Amino acid sequence: MRITIIGSGNVATHLAAALKNAGHKIIQVFSPTYQNAAMLAYHVGAQPIDALSEIDPVADIFMIAVKDDAIEGIAKQLAAYNKLTVHTSGATSLQTILNYNPLSGVFYPLQTFSKTKEVDFWQVPLCIEGADNDITAQLELLAQTISNNVQRVSTSQRTILHLAAVFACNFPNNLYAIAQMLLAQHQLDFGLLRPLIMETAQKVQTSLPIDVQTGPAVRNDTKTMAAHIDLLLDLPALRPLYEALSQSIIKMGIEHKADK
Amino acid sequence: MRITIIGSGNVATHLAAALKNAGHKIIQVFSPTYQNAAMLAYHVGAQPIDALSEIDPVADIFMIAVKDDAIEGIAKQLAAYNKLTVHTSGATSLQTILNYNPLSGVFYPLQTFSKTKEVDFWQVPLCIEGADNDITAQLELLAQTISNNVQRVSTSQRTILHLAAVFACNFPNNLYAIAQMLLAQHQLDFGLLRPLIMETAQKVQTSLPIDVQTGPAVRNDTKTMAAHIDLLLDLPALRPLYEALSQSIIKMGIEHKADK
Repeated sequence: MRITIIGSGNVATHLAAALKNAGHKIIQVFSPTYQNAAMLAYHVGAQPIDALSEIDPVADIFMIAVKDDAIEGIAKQLAAYNKLTVHTSGATSLQTILNYNPLSGVFYPLQTFSKTKEVDFWQVPLCIEGADNDITAQLELLAQTISNNVQRVSTSQRTILHLAAVFACNFPNNLYAIAQMLLAQHQLDFGLLRPLIMETAQKVQTSLPIDVQTGPAVRNDTKTMAAHIDLLLDLPALRPLYEALSQSIIKMGIEHKADK
Repeated sequence: MRITIIGSGNVATHLAAALKNAGHKIIQVFSPTYQNAAMLAYHVGAQPIDALSEIDPVADIFMIAVKDDAIEGIAKQLAAYNKLTVHTSGATSLQTILNYNPLSGVFYPLQTFSKTKEVDFWQVPLCIEGADNDITAQLELLAQTISNNVQRVSTSQRTILHLAAVFACNFPNNLYAIAQMLLAQHQLDFGLLRPLIMETAQKVQTSLPIDVQTGPAVRNDTKTMAAHIDLLLDLPALRPLYEALSQSIIKMGIEHKADK
């Protein structure tokens, strides 16, 4: 397919690369900052543009990969072209762009992307939704050219997925950052925790997290928990967090036992 | 070395296996439950015992790998043998066993172990501490036969490491479990999040977590955060957790920018 990418951030970058590698033609890359458009366009052999008025109508599909609050404005401007248009956001409804164009869909890759780190796109769950069955089928075919894990996901399901992804990715990373800070304050290297972090993520690749919970809270080891809270005396912001997460482990552990 | 393992849980199991594979002789495995001692002893070619009175004094070292609150009692009973004795706990001081025996040390593997999942022990940071320089040197040599990542770590540093490990392992796993629960409530499969969880852990293998934070909080995307909090209306226990972790991301992001 002939594809135009609207955006030049992490999602736009990885998506454009995966689509080009699958043999699709990236026609244009748009960014309001020409330099950014040019950088990504260079890598995928496309034309960089910094004004939507320069859009080439030869494209078969427009893919909007911009900040959530910019999606609607762009969809409005693209509506005149009457082309299949998708956004790539977990937190935005299909309706947001469907209001401007009946040929709308969603193409949401459920992964965290950094510009400097390659991702095996074949493993990335690609959540698609179309305004009608034809669009859904067309997006599914396109998605299957770059991912082995294509899922039809409605807007309401995608909203939950996105919330769950915050719990499974953004929040754990913050906890890693807290651990990093605790170690730095005591001249200890973050590298000491890296194998532990990998193993914790690896465990839930084959198990469910509720079945592999470890640590003082799930053992209800009140002595260790009290000692930890004492250690956080100088870090008052972390004490309520330690307590809330320990309580969450205890509560979910009890409910899980009751379910068995 | 001739080693006696006191305990038959996750740490005892993985430690005994690694030591045996490195060519050491596991003399005995003790557990108050004979069946448990027998199971591990069978795998490492040792004699199972369920009473400390049956300890064979031929051992060069006793390794205590039991629940934290049982360590002191066991150290007390083992003192009569006058043998090098180490515990393997992150949360227990060296002093706890040193009170009973001058030949004391700590041999703490900083990893999360499950009995059913193999761990590459060469990658596990092994934190050692000895009551004197001779003991420290001896433990270091022993540790280097099973791990490429041996560190001398004092009791006070180990206490911080253990607290940081709770933030980097036990708490993230609870957040995975929350994500699992959210998906299950909407008939979505936890497998959708597995690549995201792996990638989040993989990112911090080469970066520092504070540098790779993503998600609505670090972008200060108040609209998405408000939408997420609305979604948690029926799950009142999760709302304060969502808010506290988002605030933590925002606060650390601001401090990190100021540091730059």
